[in-house]
Order: sequence, then structure tokens, then C-alpha cells
Amino acid sequence: MPIYNPPLDDIRFVLNEVLKAGALAREIPDYAEADWDTVGGMLEAVSEFARDVAFPLNQSGDKEQCTYNPADKSVKTPKGFDEAYQQYAALGLIGMSADPAYGGMGMPQYLNVAASEMLTAANFSLSSYPGLTGGAYKALHKFASDDLKDIYLPKMLSGEWSGTMCLTEPQAGSDLGLIRTKAVPQNDGSHAITGSKIFITCGEHDLTRNICHLVLARLPDAPEGVKGISLFVVPKFLPDANGEPGARNPAFCTGIEHKMGINASSTCSMSFEGAKGWLVGEPHKGMKAMFMMMNDARLKVGMQGLGLSEIAWQNAATYASERVQGKALKDFNNPDAKSVAIINHASVRRHLMDMKAQIDGFRALAYDVAIRLDLAAKHPEPTVRRDAEEYAGLMTPILKSCLSDLSCTVAQRGIQLHGGMGFINETGVNQYYRDSIIATIYEGTNDIQAMDFTFRKVLDFNDHMNRLGLFMAPLTEQVEAAKSNPATAEAAKVMEEGIKIFQNTCTAFMQLGMAGKLDEIHAQADHFLNMTGRLAVGSMWLKMVDAANEGLAALPENDGKAAFYRNKLALSDHYFTHIMRPDMKRMELLVAAGAAFLGNISREQQVPGPELGIAKSESKPDNRGHGPFFTF
Amino acid sequence: MPIYNPPLDDIRFVLNEVLKAGALAREIPDYAEADWDTVGGMLEAVSEFARDVAFPLNQSGDKEQCTYNPADKSVKTPKGFDEAYQQYAALGLIGMSADPAYGGMGMPQYLNVAASEMLTAANFSLSSYPGLTGGAYKALHKFASDDLKDIYLPKMLSGEWSGTMCLTEPQAGSDLGLIRTKAVPQNDGSHAITGSKIFITCGEHDLTRNICHLVLARLPDAPEGVKGISLFVVPKFLPDANGEPGARNPAFCTGIEHKMGINASSTCSMSFEGAKGWLVGEPHKGMKAMFMMMNDARLKVGMQGLGLSEIAWQNAATYASERVQGKALKDFNNPDAKSVAIINHASVRRHLMDMKAQIDGFRALAYDVAIRLDLAAKHPEPTVRRDAEEYAGLMTPILKSCLSDLSCTVAQRGIQLHGGMGFINETGVNQYYRDSIIATIYEGTNDIQAMDFTFRKVLDFNDHMNRLGLFMAPLTEQVEAAKSNPATAEAAKVMEEGIKIFQNTCTAFMQLGMAGKLDEIHAQADHFLNMTGRLAVGSMWLKMVDAANEGLAALPENDGKAAFYRNKLALSDHYFTHIMRPDMKRMELLVAAGAAFLGNISREQQVPGPELGIAKSESKPDNRGHGPFFTF
Repeated sequence: MPIYNPPLDDIRFVLNEVLKAGALAREIPDYAEADWDTVGGMLEAVSEFARDVAFPLNQSGDKEQCTYNPADKSVKTPKGFDEAYQQYAALGLIGMSADPAYGGMGMPQYLNVAASEMLTAANFSLSSYPGLTGGAYKALHKFASDDLKDIYLPKMLSGEWSGTMCLTEPQAGSDLGLIRTKAVPQNDGSHAITGSKIFITCGEHDLTRNICHLVLARLPDAPEGVKGISLFVVPKFLPDANGEPGARNPAFCTGIEHKMGINASSTCSMSFEGAKGWLVGEPHKGMKAMFMMMNDARLKVGMQGLGLSEIAWQNAATYASERVQGKALKDFNNPDAKSVAIINHASVRRHLMDMKAQIDGFRALAYDVAIRLDLAAKHPEPTVRRDAEEYAGLMTPILKSCLSDLSCTVAQRGIQLHGGMGFINETGVNQYYRDSIIATIYEGTNDIQAMDFTFRKVLDFNDHMNRLGLFMAPLTEQVEAAKSNPATAEAAKVMEEGIKIFQNTCTAFMQLGMAGKLDEIHAQADHFLNMTGRLAVGSMWLKMVDAANEGLAALPENDGKAAFYRNKLALSDHYFTHIMRPDMKRMELLVAAGAAFLGNISREQQVPGPELGIAKSESKPDNRGHGPFFTF
Repeated sequence: MPIYNPPLDDIRFVLNEVLKAGALAREIPDYAEADWDTVGGMLEAVSEFARDVAFPLNQSGDKEQCTYNPADKSVKTPKGFDEAYQQYAALGLIGMSADPAYGGMGMPQYLNVAASEMLTAANFSLSSYPGLTGGAYKALHKFASDDLKDIYLPKMLSGEWSGTMCLTEPQAGSDLGLIRTKAVPQNDGSHAITGSKIFITCGEHDLTRNICHLVLARLPDAPEGVKGISLFVVPKFLPDANGEPGARNPAFCTGIEHKMGINASSTCSMSFEGAKGWLVGEPHKGMKAMFMMMNDARLKVGMQGLGLSEIAWQNAATYASERVQGKALKDFNNPDAKSVAIINHASVRRHLMDMKAQIDGFRALAYDVAIRLDLAAKHPEPTVRRDAEEYAGLMTPILKSCLSDLSCTVAQRGIQLHGGMGFINETGVNQYYRDSIIATIYEGTNDIQAMDFTFRKVLDFNDHMNRLGLFMAPLTEQVEAAKSNPATAEAAKVMEEGIKIFQNTCTAFMQLGMAGKLDEIHAQADHFLNMTGRLAVGSMWLKMVDAANEGLAALPENDGKAAFYRNKLALSDHYFTHIMRPDMKRMELLVAAGAAFLGNISREQQVPGPELGIAKSESKPDNRGHGPFFTF
């Protein structure tokens, strides 16, 4: 049977000892009550729910799956989901970091982010229902009228109603400019929404009394493309005069998908048949609100990746220390030697170290970004708010992409460490892979994240490289300091090499950009994103080494906690020598090769031949000179 | 709907133009009839079966799965499998490369290997039934008595009976020394076999009248460990006086596994309850016969990886050229520009090139090894036979490991290129991932392949580095020649760098080995295997460039085939600059880091702490000095 132990020690170490999250209570008046004791208590409450309620339903939910009833267009969630959801709502966890004016608890975002990690690790599917509500809440809170907010927000935060994001249509996935759903103004101030949406997570289910769809659609006078999309809230049941669910709105689920993973999360086709909706925000400005939801969703997807990596790692590590198979290498020719637990085999240990060094590093990065979001939202200083927001914007595509990739890698390696047991469903660990891969796809595929990072966040000439400066300036300072500390001097060398590779890549990309050679950049954008992720995680490991050494110094002799800190030091060494250094070198060569990608090879030769149905490239360099690369 | 077009052009190019497989008909008397025309005709027959019969049942088989009936302990295969299997058997394909004395067609092994690629691409599950028979045939043909051969082989080659390999027990997977199944001699010369086996592929099904299990078990006087294991043939039905299936032998299927993939291939728990079995080969020498089956199986697993990579790539490439989504990068700020097929996005093209450059390269390597197996089996010169066998032994773990890894990578990337469509089952492409991962696990996990390659094949002092010489001597010569040819000079530079990295790694490993630091080697053995694979595939690309240029030179002007050859040249460039060079550099640094892995970090710090249930390493360096590393 699979296990999940919420990694509270690791989470506390990162939040409290490395990032000093408790300080927020002093710096930010709105978070005055979020001292470390309070935060620690809430983390414990979440971890208990995750371990004792959500996790025991994970494997059974995967097996049972959601079922669709065409007779009444309803969706049934697996056994136990309803009770678990109600318990989650009753704990007030949906509104943990939400506005107290609408019933939220007003705690920092970072707490919500840590909760996301544990909830998705324990039960990715179950976590999707309140998870979507959280994104919808944010968009409504920021853009909706007070009237709409008063009707929807309290019921969403209490968990009585849930939310969705209805973006995708069959012809419009990554490319939302192709959306066709229509919104026709009605005399009562509402709009009639007509169109079909697909892949709507939690679009229909039996956990809440009402479902509030946030729908992208076009008004009659809308310009073509992304600049003609508006956002509407479309409830399943129209709120009556008392704000209770009244008449059924024709917003129907027409079927659910059978998928590789997240089988207990309903993925719905939705049909809006003149359904009543209300405009959220300004006409034609729906993409702005959508990006607000999307940024929140992208960080959440990163946390899904982190949670799945953690649970996959825990199960692999546990199995490796229990499964006896094969003699120690030194005893291979000794007929009397007994077989040992496979964790004693160096290859197995290296795989486990590879996994954990990345999980711990990215956890620190993710929580750091979460704290920046709190600074961005609530800090009294406007410049602190702005810088924090820009920094979080720079790191969000990295977290989404790197962590979802990491969860696939770790989950796959976890299956392999289980041998044949990993392949069979009964063991429970292949679910982590099957659940993981959606995180690399939805809320913008990882290729889209690489474009967003490279073209919108870094190569943005209007920004004058400000965002990069927010990343690089403290990093350079940190590495300088690390060089003179014997505990971090070796790591600092790897960081210096890495910074050089990163800077060379930035320069090369700038030059290609100036010359209009955008394809040459685009072809290697994922490597650029990953390279930045390696550097950012390296920065986190430097911080963790300092914190671990501080922790060790403060311990009484022979304290059991010493092993915890020493593990962090070993994992840091492993990260710099086994992961960061080799990967940076590889990516340096890839980016260098990328410049030749479309340069030295004629276009006809670039893509595999027409006999397998592959069209030729139509892309040509352009010479617009500098300016913002993208304006979406 | 997914597609599969057997890549006959690619297969013909490799076999005929690059490897000159037709020459075997002149060099080897037994293959006198296997001229290129005959071989080409058979390839076409196989491709038609794969495309028109096997492939249409792939998705439906995955959905329907095998079902187990506990009442009569039977297994039902999905709809259409029986008819398809009978058709396959009727074509004589099971015995294509088998001994004509028992009804085989006596064609070269390489043809069988090419057939494996197409059959597993089209329907991995279906191909497993005759696939297992092929391995069992080989073990019986080599080790069984004439009496046994006369009874079993003709019926297995005709497809009337099938075969299995019964190795794994719950406590004995990678570690077969732990096997407990017992064999007690009976007065009639047979043995009573008692024990439980798990994960037995095709252990029970409804496609054949009899199933012949090859079972590893211990005789009463057996020494402990791998040196006390014997091999037995245990039929489901005991052959009667006429060689027809008679009384039911108590060798029962007690259940089938529910798995992540290969759902239409039955994975059985088997219970031998005093079942009658006959010794195959000498007592206690079962591992020898098992390794014979295993080597054959490992190459076959490599072909499974190749086939799955190919079909995943074909579907990704086709979807990418059809799916319209997103404007070309140069048009991003042009409101009038239309969205384009995603293959026009440079990132998508790069992914497709990454896939195809490896698929083509490894296909050439796999077919080259297959031809060596023919030389090993049938060449008139004993030294040619011996060298060919050694070379194939060196490359087999590389093909098994690299190709199964490749299929996971390509299938995952293929899902991602399909966006949300890839995640839902209806599209059919997530099956390729779910089917792929078993190939990284069974017939020895990829970590076991890395150990086999590193410790048994390379660091074998008894062999005096002969095997490496068989690889390195022609490689060095080839690279020298390639340097002076403008068409390959750039690639030759990458190869030279690669050879240097490889040689340094070999030297470092030898020194670690001499010092008894086996864990330090073991921790990086997979990188060493992969590094050798990159080099071997590079060698194949050099050959393919020569063949493509020859092909181009021989074409009339404006011949449509020119695009095919030019694609190969572009893919070769891509392989050397985008794959081999960056990967070799990364692996060089990993291997260098590996020496520090257990050296600079105290043992206590190496593995994550006990709080997550992870035991400490018990391994210590030993100082046996040189000698063979392993003797299994």
C-alpha cells in the first residue's frame, strides 16, 4: 500500500528557517496575526486532513473514477469524495488566504501554497474541486462588481458553491484568440452565453449545491483574436432573491473524458445554450482577468508537480529501504553473503538523491515565490509590491514547467525503482505518473511557459531588463558572499559558472532578437527556462546550506535533528555537482547549437519529409528591430 | 484516430543501403536464399499484417483488456486477438528465423528483428504472445534433448502451442538466486514442479491449444543461489502418445494483474502444484539457458522500445502538421495573421527532430546488432562468429536500456505535443507511454542493464578489454576517415570529443575498479551505458550520412526521393550538435562527479534521513585488487 507523510519538517525548515516567513507578520499589517505559531498550527491542520482524509481516497478514487449520467447530465464523484470535501470546506481551508470581508481567513498566500502541495500530493483529484474555486474567487474578487461579489464570494469561500474556468474550445486550446463562444446582451443587464467548451476541470460534479463557471466569450461587437474576448460568470443555478440556487441555467455537462490520470477529477464537455451570464470586468478585457486566474493556476500547477514529486519520492524511498534484492556489490562473488535492501545499491541511492535534491530545492523556490506574492499583495511599500510582483511573474513559468516536468521524472523513476510492482495498479505508484503528465499540459503547456518566460518576461525591451535585474542582482551578491564561506565555496564556483552561462545565453538571445531571428530563440526557449530554474534553485540551496549550518550550530550535542540538517548539506552537494553543473553545461551547448538550428541547415532539410505528412516551415526571420516581442 | 505506417523506407535504407544486409546471402551458405529481394518481400508481408491486422486491434485491446475467469482459471484475450494470432501463425512468421528442421523458414535473425519492430509498434500486446514463444523456442532448441525438441518445437513454430518464461517469484525479481520453486525427480524421468511464479507474460490465454512454460526451479540437491537453479519445460497439457495435448497438468493461472499498460497482454500469477516438468539442459545450469532466453528477450525489448518510439513519433508528427494553433512568431503582433499548424513553431519542430534523430540512429544500431547475431550464429569463420557474438553482447544492454528509455521520452513528448488531446484515452497516444514503461523494467531493469554493461561486459579483466576493442578499433578508424570528408568533418569532431570522454571514463572506472571502489562506479553506470550508446549511434549516423550522400548522387535530377536523403543529412546534423555533443559533456561531468559521490561525503550524509524510513548504506570499499568483477 502506498504511503504519504506530509513533509512538515521540510516545509517548516524552508518557511521558517530559510525564508523567515514569520517575519511577514511584523512587516505587513494585514498579516499581523500570521505569526509563525499560528501558521505552524494551520500547516498541521492541513497536513492531518491531507494524510487522514484525502490520501486514503486517492487510490480508490483513481480506480472508481467519476461517472457521467446522460439522463440528467450529472456527474458522480467516487465514494467518499463528498464527505471529504465537506470536511475540507468545514475547516475553512478554501478561504484560508481569502478576503475576510467575504468570509475568508485572511492568512498569507504562502500558507495556501504550502497547503496546495500537501493536498495535491495526498489526492490530486480531490484537490482540484476546491482548487478551481480558488482561481475563480480571485478573478471575481479583483474584477467583478460589488453586487456579483456579494452574491458569489461568500458561498464560494464557504465551499457551498464551487468555481470553474471555461476557456478551451475544440479549436482553441493554447490559442485562445480562436474562441467562438458568443455572449449576447439581454435587457436585464445579463448576457445570453452560447457555445461549447471542452476539458473543463470540475465542470460538473455532486459536491456543491451550485457551480459558478467563469466563461470566456465574444460580445457581438468584439474584435477578432484575443482582444475581443470577455469574461462572464455563468452559474449552474441562477441565484434567487435570497441568493440561494434557483432556476436551472442551461449550462450543461454533455460528457466527461476518460483519461490517463486524475480520474476522480471530472473533465467535462460543457454546452452553454443561451445560458444567463454576467460580465466580469470590462468588455473585451477578458484576457486580463483570465491571466490573473492563469497566473494563480500556474503556480498551483507547480505545487501539483511538487506534491506529486514528493509522494512519488516517499514511496520510492520507502520501498527501496524495504525491498531486499541482490547482494551488495562487494559481496557479489561471495556465496554466503545475503541479499540486501536495494537502497544499499549505489545506483538506487543516486536516483533517490537526484530526486530529493530537486524536490527540496524547488520547494524552497516555490515557497519563496509564494511569499513574494504576499509582499506584492499587501506590503506597505509600493516599490516592494511592484518588485515582488515582477519577480513572481518571472518565476511562475519556471515553477509551472520545471515542477511538472520534475513530477513526471520522479514518478517515472519511482515506478522503475519498484520494478514490476510499479507497473501494476495495485501498488498505487503508477498513478503518480498518470496524474503528473496533465500538469505539463494544462494552464499552458510547458512549451508555452518557455515562450512566456523567454519572450514576455525576459526579452521584454519595454521592461528594460528590470525583471532580470531583480533576479540577478541579489544572486550575484549572494554568490560573492558564498565564495568567502568555506561551507559554500565549492557550490559558489558552480554558481559562478552557471551565471556566466546564463548571461551568455541572455546576450546571445538579445542579439538574435535584435536580428529578428525569433525561431532560433524559440527552438531553445525551454532550455533557457530550465537553465534559469537550475540557477534559481542553486540560489535556494545556498540559502538552505546557511540555514542548515545555523541549525546545526544551535543544536545540543547528539541531538537527533542533526541528521536532518546533515542530509540537507549532502543534498546540496549533490545538487551542485550531480545536477546543476552537468545540466548547465549541457544547456549551454544546446543553446549554442540552437543558433545554428535554422542557420546552417536549409529549410527544406530541417523537418522530416513529406512522406510522413509533415509540412515545411513557413516561418521566416523578420527585421522589425527591437520592441516588445509579444503583446498578448 | 491514431495512425501507423510501417516505416519501410527507413528500414530498407538502414538494412540495404547502410548495412548491406543483402550481402549475408553471399557470405553465409545457410542464408543463400535470403537475398535482398526475398527479404524485402517478407518485410512487406510483415508490414501489411502489422498495419492492417495488428494495429486496428491496438486501441480496442487496450480498452477491453484481458479478463480472468476464476471458475476455470482461464484468461480471455480481447476481441479480434484470436483471429489475428491465427493469421500471424498461418503466415509462418513465428518461425521466420527458426530452424527448418522443425518447420522454421531459416531466414536471418535480422529479419525477425525488423519484424519485431513493426509488430510491437502496431500492437505491443498482441506481439507478446508469439514473442514469448520465440524466446522459449531458442532455449529449447539449444539446450533440450532431441526427444523434447521433436515434441515441442514444430508445434511452437507453427503457432499451435505457445511458450512462456517463468522466472520471477514474489521474493525473486532481479535477484533470481532467491528462487524457491522446487523440482522433485520422479521415477518416469520427469520432475514434479511446485511453487508460485508472478508477472508471467502470456502465462495463460485462449490463443493456442497448449502453453509450454519454461520454469526455473531448484532440484533437491541444489546449491544455494544462482548456481542451484535448473530449467524445466512444463506444458499446460501433457503431450499424449501422438504429441497432442492430453491430460491437464496442474500448472494453473491464479490471477492476472491490472496494469498501467500492455493491457491486452496477460500478466499472470502461476501456481505449479506438483506439475510434471522435464529438465532442459544440465542440472543446476538453468541460469545459462535463462541468459540465452534473456539476451534474446533483451534485444526484443529494445525493438519494443524502437517500435513504440516510432509510432509515438508518427502520431506526434502527424498531429503537429494538422493541428492549427497559434500564429507564427513573426506574426505575433499582426492582428491579421492567421494561426498556423503547430509544426511551424520552432519548439515543436525541435522536439520532433530530437525524437527522429534518435529513432533513426538507434534503428541503425539495433539492425546492425541483429546482423551480428546472424554472423555469430552462421558465419563459416569461427573468429567472425566469436567477435560478432561478443560485439552483440556488448551492445545488447545498450539497446535494451536506451531504446526503452527513448520510447518513454518520445511517448511522453508525443502526449505533450497533443496537448489535452494526448491525455484523454480516445486519442490513443497515451497508450504508447503506458505500454513503454514496462520495457524499462522487465527482462532486467535498466539499472541492471547498466550493471551488466559496465561490470560484466566492459570491466571484465578476463576478457582483457577485447570487447571494447571490437567496438573502439573500427570506430577510431571510421572517425579518422570521416575527418577528411567535408560531409562528415564537423560530425567527426563531435565523435573525437566523444571518444575522448568515453576513454577517460573507461580509465577512471578501471582505476576505481582496481581500488575496489565499486559503488563509485555503480552510481554512474547508467551514464556510462548511455554515453556508449551515444557514441555507437554517432557511428551509425556517420554511416548513414555516407549512404545518404551515395543515394543522392545516384538519383536522377529532381527525383522525389532526394527529400528523404536530405532529411537524413539534417537529422544527422541535429544528432551531433543537439543531442550527442551536449549529452556527452553532461555525462562527462556526471561521471566525474560520481567519483566524489561516495568519497567526499561521509556515509551518514549520503542518503536522506531515517525520518523517511531510509536505511544507511552498508556498502564499503573492498580491496580485492583486479579480477573479474562479477561471475554470474
